[in-house]
Amino acid sequence: MTDQVKVACLLGDGFEDSEFRIPYDRMTKAGLKVEIIGATAGQQLRGKNGKEVAKVDLSIDEARADHYAALFLPGGHSPDQLRADARFVSFVKLFDTFNRPIAAICRGPQLLMSAGLVKGRTLTAWPTVQGDLRLAGANVKDEAVVIDRNWITSRKPDDLERFSEAIVRTLR
Amino acid sequence: MTDQVKVACLLGDGFEDSEFRIPYDRMTKAGLKVEIIGATAGQQLRGKNGKEVAKVDLSIDEARADHYAALFLPGGHSPDQLRADARFVSFVKLFDTFNRPIAAICRGPQLLMSAGLVKGRTLTAWPTVQGDLRLAGANVKDEAVVIDRNWITSRKPDDLERFSEAIVRTLR
Repeated sequence: MTDQVKVACLLGDGFEDSEFRIPYDRMTKAGLKVEIIGATAGQQLRGKNGKEVAKVDLSIDEARADHYAALFLPGGHSPDQLRADARFVSFVKLFDTFNRPIAAICRGPQLLMSAGLVKGRTLTAWPTVQGDLRLAGANVKDEAVVIDRNWITSRKPDDLERFSEAIVRTLR
Repeated sequence: MTDQVKVACLLGDGFEDSEFRIPYDRMTKAGLKVEIIGATAGQQLRGKNGKEVAKVDLSIDEARADHYAALFLPGGHSPDQLRADARFVSFVKLFDTFNRPIAAICRGPQLLMSAGLVKGRTLTAWPTVQGDLRLAGANVKDEAVVIDRNWITSRKPDDLERFSEAIVRTLR
């Protein structure tokens, strides 16, 4: 029996539809198993543009960070909802200690910021979040994909092709 | 002819309905004139809960910061939209130099953060934004109303009574 490589996706309501869907499909197509971790197992989460619905596979209480080879943080309103809940912030903080890949796009880096991880790190994010990251002591680049050690970050839906490609390449 | 005291309200789509409506009504009732400044004059802005619609009185290009006795920044998704536009950030930055009251609730302080004004200041905000403010060097209090020099800040809809009261008392 060969175990599929598993990726944890932390997701909440109001995620940016394409920022969830495109990387999810690319990873699945590349043979990775993406598990959606949310507040409540079985919950239906809706994208902010009303185009995508995603079902939570596993509640944050059941999820074990060390079961995953990578962490995926889509944008939209989802990251700001998740970081209001200390369980998601702790998951991100713990996951980063493994030095396994963390891929965050748009407002996804808000979770890295709330986990106290961004000071001195190099990354990108949604333009308004770039400003917050600078104030928090991060080295911010306004580029489509920024790779710093285990972090892969992107800014917006336009960056999705390159973001997805970088994730799949890293996990191959 | 007596001039009414004017308050500038910077507003974008997806504002938190009650965080706009309640202070707006209290200020109007107290004899203040609240002018809604947005990207385009005449534009209809919608609250994120679909309960309120607000019409932009004046575009940001026409608005002069020195014409107003106070600045009001409601929360919701509006502040993050506005701070993506340098004209709104400049307005806030200039307004603060006058030392006239700035009242911000929920995510409203994101505009103060993007204007580079929060370091060393004492304020409150929506819980997740409180964390960003701390990382940016602000002194954050988790209280219903925080007053620091010319700033009046609050956290959420539950704080609206005390927030509105503090604004009206300051401007009386």
